[in-house]
Amino acid sequence: MDSQLGSVLITGANRGLGLEMVKQMVEGPHPVRKMFACCRDPDGARAEALQMLAKKHPNIISVVRLDASDLCSIKQCAQQVGSLVGTGGLNLLINNAGILFKGNVQETSPEDMLNTFNINVMGPMNMLKEFLPQLLAAAKASGIPGMSSRKAAVVNISSFLASMGSIGQTYDYMPAVSYRISKAGLNMLTMCAAEELKKDQILFSLLHPGWVRTDMGGEEGEIDAPESVQGMLDVMASLTEKQNGALLDYKGKSIPW
Amino acid sequence: MDSQLGSVLITGANRGLGLEMVKQMVEGPHPVRKMFACCRDPDGARAEALQMLAKKHPNIISVVRLDASDLCSIKQCAQQVGSLVGTGGLNLLINNAGILFKGNVQETSPEDMLNTFNINVMGPMNMLKEFLPQLLAAAKASGIPGMSSRKAAVVNISSFLASMGSIGQTYDYMPAVSYRISKAGLNMLTMCAAEELKKDQILFSLLHPGWVRTDMGGEEGEIDAPESVQGMLDVMASLTEKQNGALLDYKGKSIPW
Repeated sequence: MDSQLGSVLITGANRGLGLEMVKQMVEGPHPVRKMFACCRDPDGARAEALQMLAKKHPNIISVVRLDASDLCSIKQCAQQVGSLVGTGGLNLLINNAGILFKGNVQETSPEDMLNTFNINVMGPMNMLKEFLPQLLAAAKASGIPGMSSRKAAVVNISSFLASMGSIGQTYDYMPAVSYRISKAGLNMLTMCAAEELKKDQILFSLLHPGWVRTDMGGEEGEIDAPESVQGMLDVMASLTEKQNGALLDYKGKSIPW
Repeated sequence: MDSQLGSVLITGANRGLGLEMVKQMVEGPHPVRKMFACCRDPDGARAEALQMLAKKHPNIISVVRLDASDLCSIKQCAQQVGSLVGTGGLNLLINNAGILFKGNVQETSPEDMLNTFNINVMGPMNMLKEFLPQLLAAAKASGIPGMSSRKAAVVNISSFLASMGSIGQTYDYMPAVSYRISKAGLNMLTMCAAEELKKDQILFSLLHPGWVRTDMGGEEGEIDAPESVQGMLDVMASLTEKQNGALLDYKGKSIPW
């Protein structure tokens, strides 16, 4: 990272890319000041690695309960985080939590569609709305000129699969219709938010992590989580108003819609 | 139209663009063989104009009850239409029904988001799945080479507002975040279906009707429904496998994602 980040919140922080992001942002050369690592069940077996990391860095990491598919849970999380960040606000919100069903059109049930939309689109939308006061506070409090992830930003994890142009290359292997639809929706939401909130100097960006060997990406992935996350953190650190609303891969390369 | 269409189903057929489509497809120079004009409440005051049109053309138009946001209603409609079209199947499904909330990110409630997604994305998806056997039957029965709207096709009414590139020009006047998200999702669904079902020779296309003076478009629209529909019917008639998955406006011009 070019320069230290202030307060950061990551959803889906207990495994995969989320956990690796927490790790690198805390143990990297320029650790963040405050990290809110959110997951659905902080006391469960699937959050053990995150809890161990948090114990090593008790002054930086707070593990916070959050079900990003549940507005009530988001409101509780926002209240808890708000009381901790105070007037400095939240500098960076990373909507990383997401789900993927692999089915094609004929295999995708209405329930798959609604679950995926709820977690991958409604989740980031509700997160943005509930944390907006804290992002606005950060934009005002930071004193940093221009737009950046150190000042006030929302990074939404999207995917190459949401690119209309990718379908011909990827559909046979990974139809994932409900996922593609949700990420296309997330891209649109992010573009709209970028347009709406640029006057408030809140930066929005969409990142494609690459095809990563995680639970979601599967064993055939092309890169491991540390490489993906290192790339994404470099990209996040380099974001300016020029990239507001952009869809970039973990190497910083622009992806067509 | 270049050549006669066989059996056509239109959702949201009781007013606006839907009603005008029924009218032109039935009273135009090359009337369709069979028109299933679907609306939520065929007996209500808002369906009077459609019922009058149906009375004039009792051998062509069947007014069918359909709530495209309700899977059960779609299944009933598919059963009813299926028994009428028989082995010839359904040649053209036009998913025209849709809703629009105008709010920006901060004004859009979770209920607005879910309602819009349900009607504008789940509706066309469920319609496609439930009518797929009839579309496949039409593709087999038609005997027409290549892909066309006379053989077997799905036309989904989309919008210029779903174009990522349109946001800068249109957002201040018409944020319509939930609508844009839904139509971006519909575009993705349509592209996926086009890829999945091209082997079965079912053509998929997305049409932008223009900014039309209807209940949805408002009085400030640039064109009237007859002009929009005439353009869209010309475009539909000209579709071939080259346009499979394309997003076109009512003049046939390609719109970028």
